[in-house]
Amino acid sequence: MMPNEFGQLFKITSFGESHGKAIGVVIQGCPSGLKVDESIINNYLQRRRPGSLPWVSSRNEPENFEILSGVFEGKTLGTPIAVTVYNTNQKSKDYDYIKDNPRVGHADDMWKNKFSHTDHRGGGRSSGRETLSRVIGGAFAEMLVKQSSSNTKIITKISKLGPLINTTDEAYPVGTEELLTTAKETGESYGGHISLTIINPVKNLGQPVFKKIKSELTSAMMSIGAVVGVEFEGSFVNVLKKGTEFHDSATSKKYSGIRGGISTGEDINLTIAMKPTSSIKDTAKQGRHDPCILIRALPVVETMAYLVLADQILWSRLDNI
Amino acid sequence: MMPNEFGQLFKITSFGESHGKAIGVVIQGCPSGLKVDESIINNYLQRRRPGSLPWVSSRNEPENFEILSGVFEGKTLGTPIAVTVYNTNQKSKDYDYIKDNPRVGHADDMWKNKFSHTDHRGGGRSSGRETLSRVIGGAFAEMLVKQSSSNTKIITKISKLGPLINTTDEAYPVGTEELLTTAKETGESYGGHISLTIINPVKNLGQPVFKKIKSELTSAMMSIGAVVGVEFEGSFVNVLKKGTEFHDSATSKKYSGIRGGISTGEDINLTIAMKPTSSIKDTAKQGRHDPCILIRALPVVETMAYLVLADQILWSRLDNI
Amino acid sequence: MMPNEFGQLFKITSFGESHGKAIGVVIQGCPSGLKVDESIINNYLQRRRPGSLPWVSSRNEPENFEILSGVFEGKTLGTPIAVTVYNTNQKSKDYDYIKDNPRVGHADDMWKNKFSHTDHRGGGRSSGRETLSRVIGGAFAEMLVKQSSSNTKIITKISKLGPLINTTDEAYPVGTEELLTTAKETGESYGGHISLTIINPVKNLGQPVFKKIKSELTSAMMSIGAVVGVEFEGSFVNVLKKGTEFHDSATSKKYSGIRGGISTGEDINLTIAMKPTSSIKDTAKQGRHDPCILIRALPVVETMAYLVLADQILWSRLDNI
Amino acid sequence: MMPNEFGQLFKITSFGESHGKAIGVVIQGCPSGLKVDESIINNYLQRRRPGSLPWVSSRNEPENFEILSGVFEGKTLGTPIAVTVYNTNQKSKDYDYIKDNPRVGHADDMWKNKFSHTDHRGGGRSSGRETLSRVIGGAFAEMLVKQSSSNTKIITKISKLGPLINTTDEAYPVGTEELLTTAKETGESYGGHISLTIINPVKNLGQPVFKKIKSELTSAMMSIGAVVGVEFEGSFVNVLKKGTEFHDSATSKKYSGIRGGISTGEDINLTIAMKPTSSIKDTAKQGRHDPCILIRALPVVETMAYLVLADQILWSRLDNI
Repeated sequence: MMPNEFGQLFKITSFGESHGKAIGVVIQGCPSGLKVDESIINNYLQRRRPGSLPWVSSRNEPENFEILSGVFEGKTLGTPIAVTVYNTNQKSKDYDYIKDNPRVGHADDMWKNKFSHTDHRGGGRSSGRETLSRVIGGAFAEMLVKQSSSNTKIITKISKLGPLINTTDEAYPVGTEELLTTAKETGESYGGHISLTIINPVKNLGQPVFKKIKSELTSAMMSIGAVVGVEFEGSFVNVLKKGTEFHDSATSKKYSGIRGGISTGEDINLTIAMKPTSSIKDTAKQGRHDPCILIRALPVVETMAYLVLADQILWSRLDNI
Repeated sequence: MMPNEFGQLFKITSFGESHGKAIGVVIQGCPSGLKVDESIINNYLQRRRPGSLPWVSSRNEPENFEILSGVFEGKTLGTPIAVTVYNTNQKSKDYDYIKDNPRVGHADDMWKNKFSHTDHRGGGRSSGRETLSRVIGGAFAEMLVKQSSSNTKIITKISKLGPLINTTDEAYPVGTEELLTTAKETGESYGGHISLTIINPVKNLGQPVFKKIKSELTSAMMSIGAVVGVEFEGSFVNVLKKGTEFHDSATSKKYSGIRGGISTGEDINLTIAMKPTSSIKDTAKQGRHDPCILIRALPVVETMAYLVLADQILWSRLDNI
Repeated sequence: MMPNEFGQLFKITSFGESHGKAIGVVIQGCPSGLKVDESIINNYLQRRRPGSLPWVSSRNEPENFEILSGVFEGKTLGTPIAVTVYNTNQKSKDYDYIKDNPRVGHADDMWKNKFSHTDHRGGGRSSGRETLSRVIGGAFAEMLVKQSSSNTKIITKISKLGPLINTTDEAYPVGTEELLTTAKETGESYGGHISLTIINPVKNLGQPVFKKIKSELTSAMMSIGAVVGVEFEGSFVNVLKKGTEFHDSATSKKYSGIRGGISTGEDINLTIAMKPTSSIKDTAKQGRHDPCILIRALPVVETMAYLVLADQILWSRLDNI
Repeated sequence: MMPNEFGQLFKITSFGESHGKAIGVVIQGCPSGLKVDESIINNYLQRRRPGSLPWVSSRNEPENFEILSGVFEGKTLGTPIAVTVYNTNQKSKDYDYIKDNPRVGHADDMWKNKFSHTDHRGGGRSSGRETLSRVIGGAFAEMLVKQSSSNTKIITKISKLGPLINTTDEAYPVGTEELLTTAKETGESYGGHISLTIINPVKNLGQPVFKKIKSELTSAMMSIGAVVGVEFEGSFVNVLKKGTEFHDSATSKKYSGIRGGISTGEDINLTIAMKPTSSIKDTAKQGRHDPCILIRALPVVETMAYLVLADQILWSRLDNI
C-alpha cells in the first residue's frame, strides 16, 4: 500500500498539492450498485471549509467537486471513482516568502530535507487542504456503511478546547466563540480533545491480529495532521484502576464496543488529542490562519472512521466459507 | 496487506495458534547481506517469556526458535526468513472447559461469533503467545536498523503501574514486586503506562500522508492485545496548553522528534496505555495467569517499534531519483 | 493491489469510463526530482490516437492531458502525479442502441453479468480508451528508466499482420495499408504478432520467485485487451528443439536476456499475439471501428514494458544491505 | 505484494532454500470452515516428486509435510495456514563445486550478481524444489474452488514433447519413455508444450482492468522456472486468421471461456511452452538431473491455476453491494 493510500479493500488514493491545480481522490473497491448521495459529500465539504465559522481561517474557497468516473445514473459502477476539486483561490504569491523562510512548527523544512525537490507554496501536501480528499472518500464510505447497516452513525464533538470543557452534546464547548475570537486578535492558538462515538457499529468488524478495529481506527486518526494521541474509553486514566474495578460488570459495559480487536456491536468511543496550531503570534493574526483547527477537523475525523468501517465491512465478507 | 502481516517493505507474516503445533513468522523484505545476531532474538524471547519473573505467569515454556530459511553462513540471503517455535507445553486439556464457557473479558466468544470454526484451546491466535512472532521479526528489524544507523536505540519502561509511578530509569516502579505478589494472592490485576523512547532515530523517516511515522508507530502499538491508548510527548495533557506555550522554543524542543509526520532525527517519545488483564478473582489465582502483562509487554513494544523503523528505512531509499 | 492498479513500487491507478467525463491516471512511487518531459507523453498520445492513420478508426478525439498534481517547476515532487484527459467527443447517443443489444465479441454482456450496474455506453472501462491511462503512466515510467540508465530503449514492430510478414525494421509489414483499406471496405478485421525488444535493459531486474522479469512483462502484456499470447524469443517453436541445440552456446546467445527470472543486461525480446478485432461485417464498415488495432497498440505495449522496468528498478534498490 | 508471494485475497507466501532446513508455505486469506483433505496435498507431492517415474531425476526425497497452524479438527480456522517440508536428503556437498563454478544455463551466477550474499548449494530458491510450496498452497486453493463450485476441474497434459505430439488424452505422448531414457543416456534434454484446461470454471471471475483472468493465469504460469510462453486457445496460429473466420460463430465457440478478461463459465484452455532443461551433456548423465521437467511440472501448473481461481472467487464476493 502506497503512502498516499488509505484502506485495503475500500481504498482511497489522495492526490494534489495545496497550491497546485487540483486536489482529488480515487476511491477503489467500492462495490457496484451503491446509491450515490452527493449531499453527503457537500455537507462534509461545507463543514470542512475554511471560513465556515466567522472566527476561523478566512480562506473561503468554493469547493466544487466533480465526479470524473465510477458513477453512472446515480449509482456506482464498481470501477474507480475519481473526484477532483480545483484550487481556484491559490494566491500562491503570498507564499513565495516561505520558499527561503520555512515556517516555524510547519513541515516545510522537513519536506525540503526529505525530498530533493519540493513545492514550497503553502505546504504542498502537508497542508490541511489535503483533507478534502479524505472527506470526499469518506462520504462514499459512509454511503457504503449506511447501505450495509441502516443503524450505524458516527458522532463527534470537541470535548476539551484549551481551558474549556464541553459538558453538552453540542459540537463545541460553551465559550468557544469568545475564546477563539480573542485568540485571533492576540495571535494565540488552541488544541484540545475530540470525542468520536460510533453508534451501533456492525458486529464482527476487525481482522486479527494486526488489523484489529482499534488499530485501524487509531491509525486513521493518527494520519491526520495535528493529532498526537488516541485513546479508547478514556483509557489513559482508566487503565490505572485495579482490574477488579476496570472489569467490573456494572461499569465495564462502557468499554465493551471492542473485544479481542473485534467490534461487539455496542458503541465504540475514542478520544483524539490535537495540538494547538503552530501559527502563533504575528503570523497568526494574518487572514488565513486558524486559531484552532478542531472545528474543521470534526468532518475529517468522522470520514476517516467511516473509511475504516467500510473497509472492514468488505473484509468481513471473506471470513467464512 | 493481509491481517496477519505487519509492515510493507520490511514485512512480517505471523502464524500459529497458542495450542497448535508451532508459532512462527516469515520475514520478507530483509535485504541480503545483513549479519544475523541470534543473541538479540534470544534476549527478546527471554524477556517476553512467561515465568521470567517470579510474580508473573508460571507457564514456563522453553522457547527454542529454529531458523528454517533465509539465512546462510550467518547472513541474510534476501529471501524470506522463516522462523518457528514449537509449542512443547500445550496442556490443552486445561482449556477444554473454555470450549463451552468462553472466558469473561477474553476474545474467545468474539472469534466464535466471527468465524464459523475456531480453536477454543487457550485463545488460539488471540493469545499473548502470538507475540512470539513479533519479537522474532522485530529482532531482525533491530539488526537492520542498527546496521543502517549505528546510533539508534530504543528504550522502554513502565512509567505507571496501577497506583505506582516510576520516577527512576529502571524498567518498573519501586514497589512493583510487592504490588504484583499481593495481586496474585488476591486475584487482582493491574494495567498502566509504558514509555517508549527512540534515541537518535534516522532522519527523514515517515511517508506522507497516511504513513506518517506517528501513524505507523501508533498502529504498531495498538495492534498489541491490551493496548488502549497511545500518545506522543504526553499529549493528552499538553495539547490543552495555549499554543504560545506549547510551541515556545524553550519547551517545544521535547516535542521535536516528529514534524509533518517525518522524523527530525531528535528523540521520539510515546506513551502506551495498557489495561489490566481480564483474568481476575478466582481465575487469576490459578497458575498460568499474569496479574500484570506490562513487564512482558516491554520487549513486544520495542520490537514493534523496530519493525516500523526498519520498514521506513527501506521506504526512504525510494524518496529521490 | 487493486484491479485497476498496475505495479508495486512504481504504480499506476487507472480510472475513467470511455463515455464518462474523463479518463485519468494517478502515478505513485515516482521518486522526487525526476525531470518531466511532456513531449514524451504527447508522442505516445499521438501514436495511440484513433485517426492517426487514414485507414484506422476515425474517432479523432483531441487528447489534451492535464497534470493536476505531483509536478512542480518541471520536476516530480515525490507525491502522487494525477493526470486527466477529458472526453470531449463522447457521442454517447450512438451507443444507446448497445444498452439492450450487447455487441458480439465485446465484453458488454460480461460486465452486465458481473456487476449489478454498468455503463453501457461504448464499453465503459472495457473500451480501448482506457489505455490512455497506461500510455500516460508509462511515459513517466520511461522518464524514470531513462534517467536511471541512459542506454535502455524499447522498440516494437508488427511482425505479422494477418497474412503479411514483416521482414523489415519498419513498424508494420509492406502491404499493410492496402490490406487494411480493403478490410475497412469489406468489413474484415485482422490480428497478428507484435515484437517488442528491450535494448540494454538494466541488469539484475526481476525479483524471485513470483516477480520474475518474464512474469511481470507477460502479465503486463496480457492485461491489454486483445492480447491472447506472449512468448519470449520465439519460444513456442524453439522449445521443441533438442536441449543440446537450444542451449548451444553459438545460438543460445539470443535467449540470454533473462536467466533465472532476472535480466542479464542483454536484450530481451518477446512476441505478443493479438486477435482480430471483434467488430466485423456491417458493424465494422461504420466510422469508428478499426479493422486492426495492432498499430495503435504499439505505444500501449511499449509503455506497459516501461512500467515494468520502472517498478523493477525501484525494487532493485532494496536488494542489498 | 512481496516477490515471494502469489495471490491477493487468497495468498501464498513461499519460503525455503533447496538445501536449507525446510521448504514451506504460509497460506493467508483461506476462509474459516473449509474442510481439509490431506490426500489432495499428498497426491500433488507424489506427482511432483523426483523419482516418481524411472526416467526422471533420482533424487527421491520423502516429502513429509507438516501443517503447523490454521487447521483444527479437520477444518480451516481463517488464520494463516503454515506448512513445512523438511529437507532430509540435502547432499549439499555435491554442490560445493558450484560455489566457484556456476552452472551453465542455471541462475546461480544471476543470484550472485544481484544479491551480495547467496546460498550456492543447489540453486537456493531458484531450485525447482521451491515448487513444493506452490503445490501445497495450490492444494488448499483446490479445496476452496471445489467447495465453492462442485463442477470445476483442471486437467493438464503434455501436448508436445520435443519431436513427439500427443494425440491422446493421456498425460504424455506415446514414445515419451523411450525418448527420455535415451536422452538420459546421451545427455540430451527436451522441452515442449503443456495444455491446461479449466472445465466448468465459475462465471464472472477476473477483475478489470489489470487483473483479467487471462492476465492472472498467464502471470501464474510465467512465474514457473522454465516457462517461456503462454497462449490461449492456440492463439499464436489462430490470430493470423481473418477476423470473419476467427469470430465465426461456428468455430469461435472454442475461444469463449474468457471475454473482456472475465470468465464466461465455458471451458478455458491455455498452452504453456517450457524450454529444455539446461543440464545437458556430461552433467545431465549424472544421477539427479531430469532430461525433461514437463512431467513433474504438471501438478505445479495445475496448482498455480487453482491459486488464481481461488483468489478470483474471493474477489468476486466484493463485486456488488
